[in-house]
Amino acid sequence: MTAVEADEFKLDDAIAVLERTPAALGAMLAGLPETWVRATEGEGTWSPYDVIGHLIHGEHTDWIPRARHILAGETRAFEPFDRMAQFRESQGKSLSELLTTFADLRRENLDALIGMNLTEADFARRGLHPELGEVTLGQLLATWVVHDLDHVVQVARTMAKVYKDATGPWSAYLSILRDRQK
Amino acid sequence: MTAVEADEFKLDDAIAVLERTPAALGAMLAGLPETWVRATEGEGTWSPYDVIGHLIHGEHTDWIPRARHILAGETRAFEPFDRMAQFRESQGKSLSELLTTFADLRRENLDALIGMNLTEADFARRGLHPELGEVTLGQLLATWVVHDLDHVVQVARTMAKVYKDATGPWSAYLSILRDRQK
Repeated sequence: MTAVEADEFKLDDAIAVLERTPAALGAMLAGLPETWVRATEGEGTWSPYDVIGHLIHGEHTDWIPRARHILAGETRAFEPFDRMAQFRESQGKSLSELLTTFADLRRENLDALIGMNLTEADFARRGLHPELGEVTLGQLLATWVVHDLDHVVQVARTMAKVYKDATGPWSAYLSILRDRQK
Repeated sequence: MTAVEADEFKLDDAIAVLERTPAALGAMLAGLPETWVRATEGEGTWSPYDVIGHLIHGEHTDWIPRARHILAGETRAFEPFDRMAQFRESQGKSLSELLTTFADLRRENLDALIGMNLTEADFARRGLHPELGEVTLGQLLATWVVHDLDHVVQVARTMAKVYKDATGPWSAYLSILRDRQK
């Protein structure tokens, strides 16, 4: 990690975002009509319901397991991440159940992260990504934050597109309706 | 409004999103370090703090005043919306104060909307937009919803870009970092 990156990434700042994501998604989605919760941006894209399942799978298999892998000094690559796991694992579960599971796992994982007592030097420790090659612990933790925000964006964008036609002439002003156009 | 649009727009669905936005933005932003709250996507773009001020200005001057304008059968155009008002009106106010003001105004405006006892026929009533020309009440209300979601996207995207470099090789997977690239 270069000096510039070290300056950009601060653990407390990262945790401040990570600890808010379950409540933010809960406030957006809990109790919302299925029109919004099950909407997608077209074939092969994910609904808000699918996104919460994906975030749960990340809590189980991605962020903290990979941080431990790096700190253990493992030289083999991380386990590849299964981007389709939620279609299997969320089956039969209500959105409310998924939101609670995500919030619980996130709290446990942030407790684990804090318990690692990481130092600046730890952020430069390296691991091997199966596709991207060498990455650092600091990059992994920054990615956890951006990944959360990327999915908050996806949820809001997917919901907005439900009203793509309903906004009539105003759609000209609503650039979100054209982001990731299929 | 065509039959298809009328089918897409349902007042209860719209209210379900509109009533959740203040809590969603509050959960994302309240108490968050300034690194995130004051970040922008570059010159001329807005920080999360700026966005909340813009949403407050909309509650005062845009959605409900324009709905009343349409229902009153006014033939003159709506007052143009001031997209820069927040730079004047938010001055000296804390983010926490702005979030509370936004939540209070939104609650009052949704009470006013519900109190209008709108029927399907009302959604087809027309008003004159100063730039877009003829629009309907249904389109105005659908736009209110998409406008909220557009700004939720903007807040999350702006925050994500703070860690643009910090994610290292993972940036290749994080498409949010390239949306609305300056």
